[in-house]
Amino acid sequence: MLLEKIEQSSDIKKLKAEDYPVLAQEIRQFLLEKISRTGGHLASNLGVVELTMALHLAFDLPKDKIIWDVGHQAYTHKILSGRKDGFDDLRQFGGMSGFPKRKESPYDAFDTGHSSTSISAGLGIAQAREILGEDYSVISIIGDGALTGGMAYEALNNAAQLKKNFIIVLNDNEMSISKNVGGMSRYLSNVRTREGYADLKLKVERTLRSVPVIGKAMVNGLFLAKNGIKQFLVPGMLFEDMGITYLGPVDGHNVEEMVQVLKEAKRVRHAVLVHVVTTKGKGYGPAEQNPSRFHGVDPFDIETGKPLKEKQFPGYTDVFSEKLCELAEKDPRIVAVTAAMPDGTGLSRFAKQFPDRFFDVGIAEAHAVTSAAGMASAGLKPVVAVYSSFLQRGYDQILHDVCIQELPVLFAIDRAGLVGSDGETHQGIFDISFLSLVPGMSIMAPKNLWELERMLEFGVGFDGPLAVRYPRGQAYRGLSEFDAPVEYGKAEMLFEEKDIALFALGSMVSTGEHVREKLKARGYSCTLVNARFVKPLDTDMIDRLCRSHKLIVTLEENVLRGGMGMCATRYIHEHHPEIHVIQVALPDAYVEHGNVSLLREMLGIDSDSVIKRIFAEYLDLYDSHGNMKIQNSFDCPNSTEKERQDP
Amino acid sequence: MLLEKIEQSSDIKKLKAEDYPVLAQEIRQFLLEKISRTGGHLASNLGVVELTMALHLAFDLPKDKIIWDVGHQAYTHKILSGRKDGFDDLRQFGGMSGFPKRKESPYDAFDTGHSSTSISAGLGIAQAREILGEDYSVISIIGDGALTGGMAYEALNNAAQLKKNFIIVLNDNEMSISKNVGGMSRYLSNVRTREGYADLKLKVERTLRSVPVIGKAMVNGLFLAKNGIKQFLVPGMLFEDMGITYLGPVDGHNVEEMVQVLKEAKRVRHAVLVHVVTTKGKGYGPAEQNPSRFHGVDPFDIETGKPLKEKQFPGYTDVFSEKLCELAEKDPRIVAVTAAMPDGTGLSRFAKQFPDRFFDVGIAEAHAVTSAAGMASAGLKPVVAVYSSFLQRGYDQILHDVCIQELPVLFAIDRAGLVGSDGETHQGIFDISFLSLVPGMSIMAPKNLWELERMLEFGVGFDGPLAVRYPRGQAYRGLSEFDAPVEYGKAEMLFEEKDIALFALGSMVSTGEHVREKLKARGYSCTLVNARFVKPLDTDMIDRLCRSHKLIVTLEENVLRGGMGMCATRYIHEHHPEIHVIQVALPDAYVEHGNVSLLREMLGIDSDSVIKRIFAEYLDLYDSHGNMKIQNSFDCPNSTEKERQDP
Repeated sequence: MLLEKIEQSSDIKKLKAEDYPVLAQEIRQFLLEKISRTGGHLASNLGVVELTMALHLAFDLPKDKIIWDVGHQAYTHKILSGRKDGFDDLRQFGGMSGFPKRKESPYDAFDTGHSSTSISAGLGIAQAREILGEDYSVISIIGDGALTGGMAYEALNNAAQLKKNFIIVLNDNEMSISKNVGGMSRYLSNVRTREGYADLKLKVERTLRSVPVIGKAMVNGLFLAKNGIKQFLVPGMLFEDMGITYLGPVDGHNVEEMVQVLKEAKRVRHAVLVHVVTTKGKGYGPAEQNPSRFHGVDPFDIETGKPLKEKQFPGYTDVFSEKLCELAEKDPRIVAVTAAMPDGTGLSRFAKQFPDRFFDVGIAEAHAVTSAAGMASAGLKPVVAVYSSFLQRGYDQILHDVCIQELPVLFAIDRAGLVGSDGETHQGIFDISFLSLVPGMSIMAPKNLWELERMLEFGVGFDGPLAVRYPRGQAYRGLSEFDAPVEYGKAEMLFEEKDIALFALGSMVSTGEHVREKLKARGYSCTLVNARFVKPLDTDMIDRLCRSHKLIVTLEENVLRGGMGMCATRYIHEHHPEIHVIQVALPDAYVEHGNVSLLREMLGIDSDSVIKRIFAEYLDLYDSHGNMKIQNSFDCPNSTEKERQDP
Repeated sequence: MLLEKIEQSSDIKKLKAEDYPVLAQEIRQFLLEKISRTGGHLASNLGVVELTMALHLAFDLPKDKIIWDVGHQAYTHKILSGRKDGFDDLRQFGGMSGFPKRKESPYDAFDTGHSSTSISAGLGIAQAREILGEDYSVISIIGDGALTGGMAYEALNNAAQLKKNFIIVLNDNEMSISKNVGGMSRYLSNVRTREGYADLKLKVERTLRSVPVIGKAMVNGLFLAKNGIKQFLVPGMLFEDMGITYLGPVDGHNVEEMVQVLKEAKRVRHAVLVHVVTTKGKGYGPAEQNPSRFHGVDPFDIETGKPLKEKQFPGYTDVFSEKLCELAEKDPRIVAVTAAMPDGTGLSRFAKQFPDRFFDVGIAEAHAVTSAAGMASAGLKPVVAVYSSFLQRGYDQILHDVCIQELPVLFAIDRAGLVGSDGETHQGIFDISFLSLVPGMSIMAPKNLWELERMLEFGVGFDGPLAVRYPRGQAYRGLSEFDAPVEYGKAEMLFEEKDIALFALGSMVSTGEHVREKLKARGYSCTLVNARFVKPLDTDMIDRLCRSHKLIVTLEENVLRGGMGMCATRYIHEHHPEIHVIQVALPDAYVEHGNVSLLREMLGIDSDSVIKRIFAEYLDLYDSHGNMKIQNSFDCPNSTEKERQDP
């Protein structure tokens, strides 16, 4: 086994060239075995095995800095930089991340997770290198899909000004753009990198100058047109137009060829793009045939490619998928917009059923939101389906383009709350806060499967900006007996008693149900309300609760700061200062990868943790009249250091 | 006067072609006279007089939809669509907006304000038109500067898929990109729009096929290369590469030529870009010579071009500008980043003094933030200077690229708070809320000129993400005797008394000073604290205040939701429930254009409004022991409907 000899980045350099294909094969086998057990990103990682080997061969790591765009394709990089053992607990809580992490390894130069950031980060690092007078290479690896993100263009546009080396590797697996691969391109790549581009250019210029029929004016014009000839001959003229030298395309499964071109690229005295062509899922039949299904996988059987556990059905995504199509059949104004996530958001079904009313705009959330605003302004009812953490990319567009004009755009926010194994960059734990502060925005969250349907029915009929957020995974099927029509800004009373009131939102309603059962088992009286709307908050319901309860517990799967609990507490302090409030929410911190149930426990939002807090902060301290049992709470001796630092 | 005959959009069509230059001249005179009195955007509007006339001539408004990118250049459009009279109260409270507003006129198809949104919005409208089976033209007008924004590329990339007409007018005033204007370009434009592009293409192809020396393989290759010839000949090949038909360049001061090309563009069955070349400030010497200074102006003397009132000096921007240079002299790791606002942010001085350490990345806030993160990760100390409302464009980058990695990027947030006459799109009233919820972010605001200097000194030495926000306009020079060193997370006690405590942030400290003086004049005891940090909030100080006061008034120039007051109230409710809190903050609404002092009054954050609230909500209701004078507050009879809807 060659792989056994690979303990750190430089070890690959000890191999002979003829060993490269063997190592690549071993790495693929390793990835398959590990990922089939733990789950993770498969197809993208199988695609870049040779590219990663070439990078480790051509560069000197960790002195040279590699930035992986998105970052889910960095598994081979982790293997080659001494993290093989980490694959046993990949994406598990406390285990190795599925993304590059500076705190995990010095070989990870920059943390990634969302798309299209790598050129910006790499350019910044290259600029820092020049200012600090250091000497190393900076290489950003970006996929063709990620190049549809506007940030990548902003960075390319800016990178053109750099007068020093900066290497951008375009990993083109033909997922979206750059179809111009073929004989001519390959020929030109050979010409440029091996036979010398300058010579050819001269020859062609001389030839064209001798063509009389085009006419003197035009021939002069030709040579006035900056880089005219080059653009004529080079397949990457879009990049050349932007001032970036283009090298390629190169076979992304030929290690030696890539090493050669990368070394060539190192010599360029400005920004240079190396166009590498790879096959997603390379080497594993099922993944090559269906790279999309093998993008991110749960544990699966290597022989058949089938998941070991059947998918929990239906998820909220499925409910959304089906219901939206049903609504769209009735209302021809309903259209759907996604930023390159038709499968993940469940819009594939809509795309098939209503191809003319479906818009996949690329990895371009900003444009997705504003084009939806445009559609809404012209009479349509656009539904933007998007993951919570990616909506952060369209934030100004929500504030500036949708909400100032009060346009009826419905945001279907999937993966809202904890998402689990993707970790910090993908947790959807901020949307309530960042959307609540937007004037004119309304926000709902369903307690179960059927309520999501009701909210979508309500949503497509609503005349203004509206968001409905729902979590990853199986849709809750409990509380099906509660199916009151959705009324704007109104909460839903589920179980009305007294003393303790649980005011829970979305995914936390089922948690509230468990909390209530456990409290009742201990003899306490407990009310459970389904908040339904975060904004506007149902203050009538809060007033009602405050009249017959001593403690109100707000529950949400979102950070505390700016969330529902903070907003409710402000209201309660003004109008019902005698009522105690416990805000169950996530702390002011990023949440690492791990199993969602485990994370909920760690973060104190599972039912047992909530019960503990209710006892510690209320039941153990106060009698049934709400009077302090032992001490005066106004002295607040029990506020912790953490709370003091940031309440 | 021809202008007198222009009452609505169609009126211009009654003029003869020879009258166009006269009308253009009259419009320029009108703009100069009006803007020199009211202030407003001058240079950009003088540049597009003829372009706007051509649009009104070539299209049928308001049936056809014009979307003005940024929107500050829509004055002539407002004149031609029957809003001449609005210029007397341009940008005044209750008067005409300086930007397109759908609620102002049916001729304004889409609201704008921030850069690079028009292609997204226009594409969305064009798509809606097709789905609804309607028939009108959609025209987005975007400047060359705005094309550096990633959103514009996302939209261009997406627009290429459209199979119906959609016109993008590139208003190229040579402010940043597209320098390829010249004899050849003009010649080709004539060829394409008048003599027929297809014929020429055929001729050139035939010619090249006869060139033997390039070799059979390459000639074949040439014709394989999609659009090879076209890209060879056309100056706009970057757009053609992206799948957008390119027409131009056209003289942007020749009405008839533009009308002809726009009519040509209407016939294209997909997205088409018309490249129009204009001169910013056209027709007014001082503005042509210095378009940047005449971009946005205060009232000025037409003869001399000099402002009628001397600029109030120094503004916070000036203080930042000077102090940062002083700090950068001492620390070579300090670099500065701006997204196309070197003048507005005060970084021009830094750019002159440290050209190698200054980065203007274009109108590209997302890239600005992440490239700064890259620089910070590689050992620099980047300062990103940005307007509050534009920082919304880099939100995910703050959350995802800066703060997860805890990188030491210092955000210098200018125009934080009410900005006045630019209105809804430019008010910097959300940053406290949207930054506070970001884990790892710290936020400060200075009370006066000198404190901004102290905070910058503190900021460049701080090892983590940090923001300092300060308002537009003159820096406060009061309270100069309070100059305690900035300590992380610590507020500053200014005047310590008892009963009523004012806990004020940034610009609201001087308001607090006035409130305190007025309360003291009426015999009340009043404490004033300068909060300094919004995050982390100084809860030790809040505890201290709660021990000796009955009422705490928080003051901030930011929306209530998610702001300092809400956060402080949550803490107080938990630890000091008996303490009354009044949160002085902005309501949950966009704020229109108008004079800042007037807006502050209207919104209830000036000292008199604050005093009134303190009386109405506290002093008139409670005695000096904090006991209710008349009724029990727990019944909250005085909560208004508005508050109920959204606390």
